[in-house]
Amino acid sequence: MNYEAFFKLTYGLYLLTSKSDGRLNGHISNTVFQITAEPARMAVATHADNLTTEFIRKSRVFAVSALQQEVTLEFLGNWGFKSGRDINKFEKIGHKIGKTGAPIVTEKCIAYYECEVEQEIQIGTHVLFVGRVVDLDMLAGEELPLTYAYYRDVIKGVSPEKSPTYLREEKLAPETLREKPSEQDERHAKAAPAKEMKKYRCTICGHIYDPAEGDPPAGIPPGTAFEDIPDDWTCPICGVTKEDFIPYD
Amino acid sequence: MNYEAFFKLTYGLYLLTSKSDGRLNGHISNTVFQITAEPARMAVATHADNLTTEFIRKSRVFAVSALQQEVTLEFLGNWGFKSGRDINKFEKIGHKIGKTGAPIVTEKCIAYYECEVEQEIQIGTHVLFVGRVVDLDMLAGEELPLTYAYYRDVIKGVSPEKSPTYLREEKLAPETLREKPSEQDERHAKAAPAKEMKKYRCTICGHIYDPAEGDPPAGIPPGTAFEDIPDDWTCPICGVTKEDFIPYD
Repeated sequence: MNYEAFFKLTYGLYLLTSKSDGRLNGHISNTVFQITAEPARMAVATHADNLTTEFIRKSRVFAVSALQQEVTLEFLGNWGFKSGRDINKFEKIGHKIGKTGAPIVTEKCIAYYECEVEQEIQIGTHVLFVGRVVDLDMLAGEELPLTYAYYRDVIKGVSPEKSPTYLREEKLAPETLREKPSEQDERHAKAAPAKEMKKYRCTICGHIYDPAEGDPPAGIPPGTAFEDIPDDWTCPICGVTKEDFIPYD
Repeated sequence: MNYEAFFKLTYGLYLLTSKSDGRLNGHISNTVFQITAEPARMAVATHADNLTTEFIRKSRVFAVSALQQEVTLEFLGNWGFKSGRDINKFEKIGHKIGKTGAPIVTEKCIAYYECEVEQEIQIGTHVLFVGRVVDLDMLAGEELPLTYAYYRDVIKGVSPEKSPTYLREEKLAPETLREKPSEQDERHAKAAPAKEMKKYRCTICGHIYDPAEGDPPAGIPPGTAFEDIPDDWTCPICGVTKEDFIPYD
């Protein structure tokens, strides 16, 4: 069983959204696909514990927006690694309300699809919703769609733990695991000013804190060791605290 | 309802294969995805009338091979547009038999996944099979995976009618339909030697017969009008006869 083979599956990245009792929520999903042509139906898979899953179960509607390739980790961080139980993810994001009442993200997206749930199938930890497409349209014609491969290879993002494609590190082949740290060690050996100025990696979203760069928008100047960052600092991508970071070496 | 938006969904292209009573079959699929991580499960959607669907229903096993980007329409034509009821698709194709007995295509593929069916869900015209992954491995590490976008935009392939992503022409926006023929008209006006030397398009697989090129491997020299091709000639991609071709203008 070489789990690395899962990286050869191709996916787009989407925002899956829904509503319930006047509240809106959504998260990033890669398991979105058309399943029949006539009538048009789509299927989406979500973790059973997700708030969006709860909303879809109650409202029986969902929308999907296809993300565009040119998007920042910061924009994705709003959707991918924070829970709608804690924040209103739509607060600063361009969106509209669709004909079913589901919210449709229009910012950084190239097309959308709005669906009414026809079937709900429990598959282990996940739920597959099959929806009849009641509306779909383009949002911006010229941008390429964001793919999971681009997200992983170019934007350097990782899968959150509840994703269908999340891989625990011990399931990857040893050479996959060794590769990145050793490259990293090499760069670190050349560039790091002192042994204690280590990089740290967020275990939730994969963001790397580099002491040489600091985090100027949060008032952390370049050259600040991770240990010297105030305890109320949070990950610029996913918002967790220093406790969720581990040395990256 | 702007069905063109469906082109913004991202898919890979795969060979979905199975066996039944000592026979092997398979076809091209784009609806293949991982659905849970622990334990690893995959889902595939197939048209209810396909022979491979019949085989999976009987044997309760299937395999998926992820196609590599560098692949010809001829290789794909063996899988995409011919029925295993008429030919043995595996005859000239590199493959092995997996631990479940399902055939695994190893030629022009970069990874494979072998599954035992856990759930079977009827969704309109299609069937969704959810399988527990019992084996998976890489086949060739360096090649990129073939995506549906690459197939459509670079290899110039089309969806067969039983695909979940097949779009009837009348569902596409008028500008989408007009665009290609008018470009084509322009080239035709410049290059065609005489009015009767029209190009013809295969309505099954989308292959264009160009009289300026002919079909030399089938003994049709360049400069042969479509009307002058013998009636026993068949489409070099999908094998149908002249009756399934229409004027391309």
